[in-house]
Amino acid sequence: MTQTVKAGIIGATGYTGQELVRLLHHHPRVEIAWLTSETYAGKRLPDAFPLPYDYPLIPAADADLSGVDVVFLALPHGASMDSVNRAYDAGALVIDLSADFRLHSSEAYARWYGLKHTQTALLDHAAYGLPELHRREIASARLIANPGCYPTAAILALFPLIHSALLKPPVVIDAKSGVSGAGRKLSPATHFVEANENLVPYRVGYRHRHVAEIEQELGLKGPEEVLFIPHLVPVNRGILETTVVRIKKHYTAGQLHELYLRCYDREPFVNILPPGSMATLAHSVGTNLCTIGMTGAEDDDSPADTFVVTVSIDNLLKGASGQAVQNMNIALGLPEAMGLGVTVP
Amino acid sequence: MTQTVKAGIIGATGYTGQELVRLLHHHPRVEIAWLTSETYAGKRLPDAFPLPYDYPLIPAADADLSGVDVVFLALPHGASMDSVNRAYDAGALVIDLSADFRLHSSEAYARWYGLKHTQTALLDHAAYGLPELHRREIASARLIANPGCYPTAAILALFPLIHSALLKPPVVIDAKSGVSGAGRKLSPATHFVEANENLVPYRVGYRHRHVAEIEQELGLKGPEEVLFIPHLVPVNRGILETTVVRIKKHYTAGQLHELYLRCYDREPFVNILPPGSMATLAHSVGTNLCTIGMTGAEDDDSPADTFVVTVSIDNLLKGASGQAVQNMNIALGLPEAMGLGVTVP
Amino acid sequence: MTQTVKAGIIGATGYTGQELVRLLHHHPRVEIAWLTSETYAGKRLPDAFPLPYDYPLIPAADADLSGVDVVFLALPHGASMDSVNRAYDAGALVIDLSADFRLHSSEAYARWYGLKHTQTALLDHAAYGLPELHRREIASARLIANPGCYPTAAILALFPLIHSALLKPPVVIDAKSGVSGAGRKLSPATHFVEANENLVPYRVGYRHRHVAEIEQELGLKGPEEVLFIPHLVPVNRGILETTVVRIKKHYTAGQLHELYLRCYDREPFVNILPPGSMATLAHSVGTNLCTIGMTGAEDDDSPADTFVVTVSIDNLLKGASGQAVQNMNIALGLPEAMGLGVTVP
Amino acid sequence: MTQTVKAGIIGATGYTGQELVRLLHHHPRVEIAWLTSETYAGKRLPDAFPLPYDYPLIPAADADLSGVDVVFLALPHGASMDSVNRAYDAGALVIDLSADFRLHSSEAYARWYGLKHTQTALLDHAAYGLPELHRREIASARLIANPGCYPTAAILALFPLIHSALLKPPVVIDAKSGVSGAGRKLSPATHFVEANENLVPYRVGYRHRHVAEIEQELGLKGPEEVLFIPHLVPVNRGILETTVVRIKKHYTAGQLHELYLRCYDREPFVNILPPGSMATLAHSVGTNLCTIGMTGAEDDDSPADTFVVTVSIDNLLKGASGQAVQNMNIALGLPEAMGLGVTVP
Repeated sequence: MTQTVKAGIIGATGYTGQELVRLLHHHPRVEIAWLTSETYAGKRLPDAFPLPYDYPLIPAADADLSGVDVVFLALPHGASMDSVNRAYDAGALVIDLSADFRLHSSEAYARWYGLKHTQTALLDHAAYGLPELHRREIASARLIANPGCYPTAAILALFPLIHSALLKPPVVIDAKSGVSGAGRKLSPATHFVEANENLVPYRVGYRHRHVAEIEQELGLKGPEEVLFIPHLVPVNRGILETTVVRIKKHYTAGQLHELYLRCYDREPFVNILPPGSMATLAHSVGTNLCTIGMTGAEDDDSPADTFVVTVSIDNLLKGASGQAVQNMNIALGLPEAMGLGVTVP
Repeated sequence: MTQTVKAGIIGATGYTGQELVRLLHHHPRVEIAWLTSETYAGKRLPDAFPLPYDYPLIPAADADLSGVDVVFLALPHGASMDSVNRAYDAGALVIDLSADFRLHSSEAYARWYGLKHTQTALLDHAAYGLPELHRREIASARLIANPGCYPTAAILALFPLIHSALLKPPVVIDAKSGVSGAGRKLSPATHFVEANENLVPYRVGYRHRHVAEIEQELGLKGPEEVLFIPHLVPVNRGILETTVVRIKKHYTAGQLHELYLRCYDREPFVNILPPGSMATLAHSVGTNLCTIGMTGAEDDDSPADTFVVTVSIDNLLKGASGQAVQNMNIALGLPEAMGLGVTVP
Repeated sequence: MTQTVKAGIIGATGYTGQELVRLLHHHPRVEIAWLTSETYAGKRLPDAFPLPYDYPLIPAADADLSGVDVVFLALPHGASMDSVNRAYDAGALVIDLSADFRLHSSEAYARWYGLKHTQTALLDHAAYGLPELHRREIASARLIANPGCYPTAAILALFPLIHSALLKPPVVIDAKSGVSGAGRKLSPATHFVEANENLVPYRVGYRHRHVAEIEQELGLKGPEEVLFIPHLVPVNRGILETTVVRIKKHYTAGQLHELYLRCYDREPFVNILPPGSMATLAHSVGTNLCTIGMTGAEDDDSPADTFVVTVSIDNLLKGASGQAVQNMNIALGLPEAMGLGVTVP
Repeated sequence: MTQTVKAGIIGATGYTGQELVRLLHHHPRVEIAWLTSETYAGKRLPDAFPLPYDYPLIPAADADLSGVDVVFLALPHGASMDSVNRAYDAGALVIDLSADFRLHSSEAYARWYGLKHTQTALLDHAAYGLPELHRREIASARLIANPGCYPTAAILALFPLIHSALLKPPVVIDAKSGVSGAGRKLSPATHFVEANENLVPYRVGYRHRHVAEIEQELGLKGPEEVLFIPHLVPVNRGILETTVVRIKKHYTAGQLHELYLRCYDREPFVNILPPGSMATLAHSVGTNLCTIGMTGAEDDDSPADTFVVTVSIDNLLKGASGQAVQNMNIALGLPEAMGLGVTVP
């Protein structure tokens, strides 16, 4: 690895791009080589959002893919496949924040996204970039598919129960997301007056796209095993997911807590709350943490088989750009948490 | 009934009291006789909140109970019982917004609220003030127990499935409430900086107090039939509840929609959305409406047995003071919707 | 006047249109005859916003102008002139919520709005619809130019000082507006994530368009007499304006308060706070009130010549649709406050 | 200086204390030795706020003042004086975030705060901790009085005009602050429901306490030279101040911009926007930056003497804890920006 890591970002002026710029600008070992934006091509970064980093914004076609060590792609799903291929061929480590390489099979991609995958050969090389489950694979990958924000929270909340074969499906995940999760594109749903003082359920059911990742990573392949119910809530950042889980044994909240602690022992970015506590957005927003709490449906002291598990992340950090930097650190052999504290110019 | 209805409010300076004042001040047939407040006794209404209605605030001990036609009590649970008794004895119609007369048995009250009921004789005379279920009883009642805000939404959302014997328990109700639901008392949880940009689950489980009303009204008496998971969300007003329901037959969303329409035919304050639509806060906040939407977990066209039902109300209107005025109108023989449109001085 | 007033709204699906529908739907003497919308033509009202009033939406070209008693136009400035003319010719009372007929001269209109006025003959017939200044003229008008939201607040806050010849110009008006003031059209500035947790000054200076109305109505015609500094703030509704005023005499706050009370004696929608109090949004939002407070820069007891005057209104009510209904009531000989309390279905 | 700086915080569980903990926990050269809290004494940090740093909280009386290199005090004004003295005597660098050592004379302190200063001897040793004005003094100080949040913004916005003798007083500063500026103590004004969807002017006038610091630092000593009008706005963090300035010469906006650039040349935490741009909260919140914009009242191209200057900071960073760490870095000879990027665990 070179002393300084040269990084390029394709799609730098959406919310995940913006967050990547903030993190990489302050990362002690990274130098931003170029930033692309079709909307703002020819302008400079402070024209796109209120940060004082004076980088030029170039069209993606002008990006020097072979002059950088790592390329981040923060594009919508469907728009990323071919750019990923070009960056991969140019030799860079590629971290794709879209959904295009998260599902292992092109059939699943076609079924869930309604699109033909144009880079099926690359699918086999993509590591699913959730370090808590796939750290070793990420370390040796050249293409990392950064997980979705909703699935990151859901998978980390349920994985210990899957790992220990305790979970009794189905699970219903009641998810609440801040508005930055809907992206920077203008839409009536994200107009301030429509979103503020409001709560809006949307695209609920078994067929929400994020279910695909959750099922894949947790091995919940049966029909109707994961029911996902997202809501838009009037905050800028953060995801909270609430799930009632039924388990195959009778545990106290303390015993379940022990199970989670063991599962995530030494994980730098998973914070398990004491038994009986519940995760809130404030536990995670502004950080790269995933916070998990569990409490008994009846109480916390008697052994029981029904628990309420709550999990929160910052959708732009652990749910997107923070996790992308974490993955970069792992793949490049840097300390895993390096640069994940920097947000002030 | 007299031409003009004289009304008194005990506990006029909390949020439900404030909303009652707004509604009654503009009600075409009501005259406010007195308002009590212990905190602001001796001051005037504009000292307590920013409304320009210049009423004096007196201590409850000075209230002329026999000089009014109707007494509203907006006190915390436990604090209302004895005042209700005095108002009842004085001959007024009594509408109690606390929880003290909502449960039919003093045993249930003791179990859920941890308090001995001091007016058990009156419990038999109290009508549960949900007009959509108990209109006839309310019409002839002299004591009306105004329902809780969470139960109002939950009961109206599930009642058509109970009424038609379709529901397969258990049900998990994921509820989200605006901060006014927590009352005007100061607490760390309602400090702006702690609640804003945050989402906070609290007191989740089978034993949340509001479960008692839901079970009583829906006849769900078995253990673990209703699991209630409330969250505090950063909006001033409004409750949204999301419930996955399993039914005993296979219906399309359209068929379920028909069932709800029939059940609430001619109800002035229930708004059933088209199949596939979901309730949002914006459908109900600022109104006395209860808005209900249903969509299939899989899709809306194939017959299925799993649906997502969403329901919203304004916790201070249909969830408290609006419903109290609706109950008063019914009990006094006034048009049911009278005065429920007035909020501007 | 007919027993029932038939009303039509041109441009019913923006925020001011939506508020007009709410008010007129519940107005005891009004029946909505038709609603127009180009965006939603052919659909029904609940498709455009979450209210359960089931009116059809038609294109403006299909509106039966001669079949109604009153036409409200809620269109952008520039787009209203010709429609106003057609409605006027059809014989209806016309209430225009755009800026097109607010300035008395076509020269001023051209200078401030950069547009040629196409209906100059009608300009002479237009009453400036601020009842507190022009009630008599409004009562006999057939065309009413409903004032802008910022000017309504500014003019009512300063008029008593102008009327008594006390004000020493220049004045600097620091104005803060909720996001609905920017309209329902999508723009980056009104994306939830950009507006939330933010404060944004915009188009500050002597040349802000709203200065034209303020100068016209207050007779402040000299150069640089009114400096207007608007800010977008993260609330849905409401305007607060803060102005430091220098007066020609030395008054106590109590004396200034008396002056304001006398000036607005018997005004149903002006609320003068006690000396030393300041207006907040909460005093006015949700109502048709204009709330005004004044406090001495030094203290409230010593005579002085410098005061801080604060004023608040709901930009969609007293700042737009509420005032439009108030004007309709005056022009049709109805009680001035009729229907201005109705917001609940 | 030792290799690792040992730091203690007195008053660690208010908002400024919380922010200090976040910054110091991640500072590459600092180790937190102890944290005090009277409210939470005996508990641990995660009991006081949702951060996963597991420090114990001790009463101030148990703090080992002589075992640390630097003591931060985040106490209310009046409560800090004697603790500062003890820490100073123990030999540590003392950084006081209260108002107790900001004014140079005990007479001024008594006049503005209504309290007798008990440590007048120490007043002479206190540096006013605004690095842009007093960097050299701070570098050699053992006691640093960290400036108030409002004054930090106001002084940095006006200093270039004072420094160049251009400003014509008086100035009116219209200031807007997020709710964390009001502290973590419970009060009706900071209840979510009262502050949300509201704007509240408070304690306006010449006598607002923060005027004292502004006058002292800018040398505006005449009567009525600074009129300060603060408003509480519904955001968690951030201050925006809007000031109309009259200057003694005629400048274009570009010339004024040049003046500001020269004045703050090489300042790491001052961001001067291009002429015609205005500062927003989003420019500064989450960073240690002070962002300043200026635009002509008439336009930006013609020479004129009236400008609107806008300035924003994060009240908890540049307005308090960020600036405190910046001061510590200067006083200890560390790189000035060190550790001011760390906010993620």
